[in-house]
Amino acid sequence: MNTCAMTDGQIRVVIANVQPEIEHGRFPVKRTVGEKVVVEADVFTDGHDALAAVLLYRHEKERHWRETPLLALVNDEWRGEFIVSELGRYVYTVHAWVDHFTSWRRALAKKVEAGQDVAVDLLVGAQLLGEASTRAAGQDAENLQEWARALQSPQESSLAQRIQLALAEEVASVAVSYPDRRRAATYDKELIVIVDREKARFSAWYEMFPRSCAPEPGRHGTFKDCEARLSYITAMGFDVLYFPPIHPIGRTYRKGKNNALSAGLRDPGSPWAIGAQEGGHRAIHPQLGSLADFKQLIIKAREQGLEIALDLAFQCTPDHPYVKEHPEWFRHRPDGSIQYAENPPKKYQDIYPFDFDTDHWQALWEELKGVVLFWIDQGVRIFRVDNPHTKPFRFWEWLINAVTKEHADVIFLAEAFTRPKVMSRLAQLGFSQSYTYFAWRNTKQEIMQYFTELTQTEVREYFRPNLWPNTPDILTEYLQLGGRPVFITRLVLAATLGASYGVYGPAFELCENRPLQVGGEEYLDSEKYEIRSWNLGKSESLRDVIARVNRIRRENPALQSDWSLRFHTIDNDQLLCYSKSTEDCANVILVVVNLDPHHAHSGWMDLSLETLGLDPRQPYQVHDLLSEARYLWSGAHNYIELNPQAAPAHVFRIRRRTRTERDFDYYM
Amino acid sequence: MNTCAMTDGQIRVVIANVQPEIEHGRFPVKRTVGEKVVVEADVFTDGHDALAAVLLYRHEKERHWRETPLLALVNDEWRGEFIVSELGRYVYTVHAWVDHFTSWRRALAKKVEAGQDVAVDLLVGAQLLGEASTRAAGQDAENLQEWARALQSPQESSLAQRIQLALAEEVASVAVSYPDRRRAATYDKELIVIVDREKARFSAWYEMFPRSCAPEPGRHGTFKDCEARLSYITAMGFDVLYFPPIHPIGRTYRKGKNNALSAGLRDPGSPWAIGAQEGGHRAIHPQLGSLADFKQLIIKAREQGLEIALDLAFQCTPDHPYVKEHPEWFRHRPDGSIQYAENPPKKYQDIYPFDFDTDHWQALWEELKGVVLFWIDQGVRIFRVDNPHTKPFRFWEWLINAVTKEHADVIFLAEAFTRPKVMSRLAQLGFSQSYTYFAWRNTKQEIMQYFTELTQTEVREYFRPNLWPNTPDILTEYLQLGGRPVFITRLVLAATLGASYGVYGPAFELCENRPLQVGGEEYLDSEKYEIRSWNLGKSESLRDVIARVNRIRRENPALQSDWSLRFHTIDNDQLLCYSKSTEDCANVILVVVNLDPHHAHSGWMDLSLETLGLDPRQPYQVHDLLSEARYLWSGAHNYIELNPQAAPAHVFRIRRRTRTERDFDYYM
Repeated sequence: MNTCAMTDGQIRVVIANVQPEIEHGRFPVKRTVGEKVVVEADVFTDGHDALAAVLLYRHEKERHWRETPLLALVNDEWRGEFIVSELGRYVYTVHAWVDHFTSWRRALAKKVEAGQDVAVDLLVGAQLLGEASTRAAGQDAENLQEWARALQSPQESSLAQRIQLALAEEVASVAVSYPDRRRAATYDKELIVIVDREKARFSAWYEMFPRSCAPEPGRHGTFKDCEARLSYITAMGFDVLYFPPIHPIGRTYRKGKNNALSAGLRDPGSPWAIGAQEGGHRAIHPQLGSLADFKQLIIKAREQGLEIALDLAFQCTPDHPYVKEHPEWFRHRPDGSIQYAENPPKKYQDIYPFDFDTDHWQALWEELKGVVLFWIDQGVRIFRVDNPHTKPFRFWEWLINAVTKEHADVIFLAEAFTRPKVMSRLAQLGFSQSYTYFAWRNTKQEIMQYFTELTQTEVREYFRPNLWPNTPDILTEYLQLGGRPVFITRLVLAATLGASYGVYGPAFELCENRPLQVGGEEYLDSEKYEIRSWNLGKSESLRDVIARVNRIRRENPALQSDWSLRFHTIDNDQLLCYSKSTEDCANVILVVVNLDPHHAHSGWMDLSLETLGLDPRQPYQVHDLLSEARYLWSGAHNYIELNPQAAPAHVFRIRRRTRTERDFDYYM
Repeated sequence: MNTCAMTDGQIRVVIANVQPEIEHGRFPVKRTVGEKVVVEADVFTDGHDALAAVLLYRHEKERHWRETPLLALVNDEWRGEFIVSELGRYVYTVHAWVDHFTSWRRALAKKVEAGQDVAVDLLVGAQLLGEASTRAAGQDAENLQEWARALQSPQESSLAQRIQLALAEEVASVAVSYPDRRRAATYDKELIVIVDREKARFSAWYEMFPRSCAPEPGRHGTFKDCEARLSYITAMGFDVLYFPPIHPIGRTYRKGKNNALSAGLRDPGSPWAIGAQEGGHRAIHPQLGSLADFKQLIIKAREQGLEIALDLAFQCTPDHPYVKEHPEWFRHRPDGSIQYAENPPKKYQDIYPFDFDTDHWQALWEELKGVVLFWIDQGVRIFRVDNPHTKPFRFWEWLINAVTKEHADVIFLAEAFTRPKVMSRLAQLGFSQSYTYFAWRNTKQEIMQYFTELTQTEVREYFRPNLWPNTPDILTEYLQLGGRPVFITRLVLAATLGASYGVYGPAFELCENRPLQVGGEEYLDSEKYEIRSWNLGKSESLRDVIARVNRIRRENPALQSDWSLRFHTIDNDQLLCYSKSTEDCANVILVVVNLDPHHAHSGWMDLSLETLGLDPRQPYQVHDLLSEARYLWSGAHNYIELNPQAAPAHVFRIRRRTRTERDFDYYM
């Protein structure tokens, strides 16, 4: 606390409560290129003086501040905004000063109106203009000097003329452009914006085990097989293809089918059991192919608009080269053995976690950073991080900052399914995207509450949700029991509630829903422990629905970010209704979903027309982008019926009547 | 932002969101001696380790931290508390570490329950106990060594015995007392508590013009006359007697009766027009008496339990000695004149404000501090500060801190009736108490909303409200029109909603309600501009009601602080119902007020019995401390009727049935 110091006593302006500001400025807010940052602050001073305030901002590479005005709202709150146009970091803060010219002009106007003698006031104004002229240059300086002279020369112009000049808009506009900022206040913190590329905000992920990609059942798939699969994935409209770890898999304590404690001779093991004689985190599992194959796959995928995301699973099997080369990175037990992972009474003897408490933590951190940089060198720019919440927060903060400082286009997705504050912290410290509780939010109330929190509170400044209806670890009870309709429901919810979402396929599009055990969430015959051969041509496949949903996402900017999400009232607890829109309401999407996969439901909506940018006096068209059906609605109250067997959801584009009826299409 | 540094990588615990914390720790919270500070924080780490956390605190005079445990609540939130027992400043922060022993013990218990082999685990435990012993001393160290030895000696005791020892409560309790804190985290800020004396929290103020105290009408009252008036004031139960400025009053542009622009020869002028030939802010108006008289009055008042509060009005008349001695402290206009106060089109030519923009601000600040210290030297310990919002925030922060650092018992009341954020800031930067919007909060909805904000949000940590139904500047329309009942209503509201309140008397107790103009709030024949002679013996005087209300406040600790205030539902918009209670509910006060001074109103209450500490199955007695009437109630729903002509309010003490019916008084 800076309490008793007698410093800067002439700084009279207070700047407080600057927003956005995460944990007192300890953490940055996040944007993508081209987005804007709206900044608000409390700005006030003692007495009745007028104030002026600006938002200062710059890219970290720039040496000088840019400036944009803050405008006063009500209750001493001010607001301004700036656009972030480049990758990397921007810095912003607030700067404000007493505006003596405006204070003087305001008082003068009142005195003139009251018919008071203002002769001395005009002299004061002349002084202020004269001072402003010394801060100006060129024509402005000359004008200010001339005006100052005119205000104090009764012999040249009448009092009425001088008053008119003193109150002239032009004089004010030039005078306030050259304020005396010597006693200006600057907010005591500089705040940060991390600017990512668009994919950090808007992305459609497809998770796939490369080893299951061989067309012949039973054969271990290769990167070459993956190349052949690319068109299948891009036809569905995904833009990120995420692979579980592609490294050599350990043999010691290898798990068998369905997580059996011992593996058969031909069992391939879990890809998350990283490290074998063939290498560790920088090596490729030989059966998948070579590093050259992988690099070629990256190139082929990129040609089709698909990026490969890799898994960062920082853990080792007992066979990992690190175990011999760096025993100091593991915890040793009194009997000389290395501590394997456990969550008592469960034991994971095939996994040695790194011991981040080691005194050699610096070398360990550097090595893991080296792993990330190695894959970046191969062309990877997206990483899905396995269980980040079991490694120290400081490690991630350091790693992500170190990597993105050099490679601002790299994206990290945090796979932390854990307690709320831990998930929040990981997002704050740098993860570009985060897995969410979406898989377990199935009722109307749960969905509304959770997504209101994610999109309408400060959380949205740093936590970018990525919504997954399923993962190789998560086959929810809801998916197990709801059949094909529930897969469609969860697809539509994930893809429209979230600008970023993903599915684990082909299990998802093939509606795979057999659990290992009733009451559990593991898949039967999970790909984590065996190679699966999927029948991609199955008639019930959702590939066409997925393709359509992803096309709707690409064609409608409203669905490409999350902040505009608003829920609308509908009088049936099984029906969920929400909208997303662009800021100008040029693109508005209204989604209605039947959450009950077994029964048809109907209900009356009470739409917020203002949110939808609609005129309550005009009818409007709703165009279901899933079915292509169009309906003419008017007002807030409209009837909806959804039969899950036919279509569990509507994704309406709202089309307002265009201005002239001469147009062929009345609704735009 | 401390981002890329590879420092302290072994500190794995996160401490965030420490509460209370005002503006990121920039400002202190406030308590009075004997109160407690409840501190909450988010504390968590990666993985599944157990944590331990403590609250660190110390008086600023102490060199070493005291420690008290934080206990885990839900959702990674922890809570602890400490008592502040001395005047001055306390510092607090949070400290937490991974508790390896508890993590180990928890895992061991699960493994034992699952029947797993724990031989190696016992060796790990022996290591942990051995390490703890090196941090312990005396008997604890010996015990820890002995236990460590026993855990790893299979030859001496059976496995079952060793497991029993490993899980023994006694072992755990000693082991966790000697944690390894080398990698502990400490919250990154040290937060401050200002500890005032009780009167900063609980006070009853009486404002009086000393010059109106002469028993003979028309004579200028003196401090001697005030001495004679003391018993009248203390009989009403007030404990602070606040005088408008007692300094020499200027003659230039002196205001006449009812704020007339020119004063008559015998008009005494406004006491806020400070400074004349006889002296300035350190002098006493000669007609009031001498400095010795004033000091004697302070002593006499203190003997009766009454403290004198002085007014700090930092402004000058044109006759103030400063104007000649320090012209550099005032703003000069281009015509050579000094800038008088104005709020265009209003002019206050009798007042020269200090120019805080002066380059000689340091000397000005020091002089004003000297004024405060001068009156402290005379025995004054309470100051009411006139219009602090028209002087710089930094000045007040510096002044109050500088004064209270040497005199921790000094109390400052901020008289700022201005915009919310400005009032809030003045409280944050150091004022001990603040005037409020109470005078203009007259409807049920307004009162509930405003006092919920003041007592149930973070505001209460720094803003101590002082409630005034009237002041020499404020005779509200409500008081003008409501007659005697409304004075009682406003008295009861002020004295029970606020632990600190005040009235401007004798105008208040004599129900003076004649305004200068209809629609204005100025008193007719205001004491600000003339000497008034009050008929204290008037039959309608509220002196007995005030005396009773102040006695109720003294006898009921529930009314001596504000944080327990809760509003209860009552089905009539003219009836307001609220309670205050001590933390243990030993003292509970329930107030019901009829806000309509003209009509009787009745209604049914829906009391929150839990708030009142009542058992819903037991009847209870409500004892009206104003009328001495007692009623037997049961449950939440009770009927109330209040006729403003008879009694516009009840102030009930709630008496629960005592345990045994053998007691003479069944209700305590």
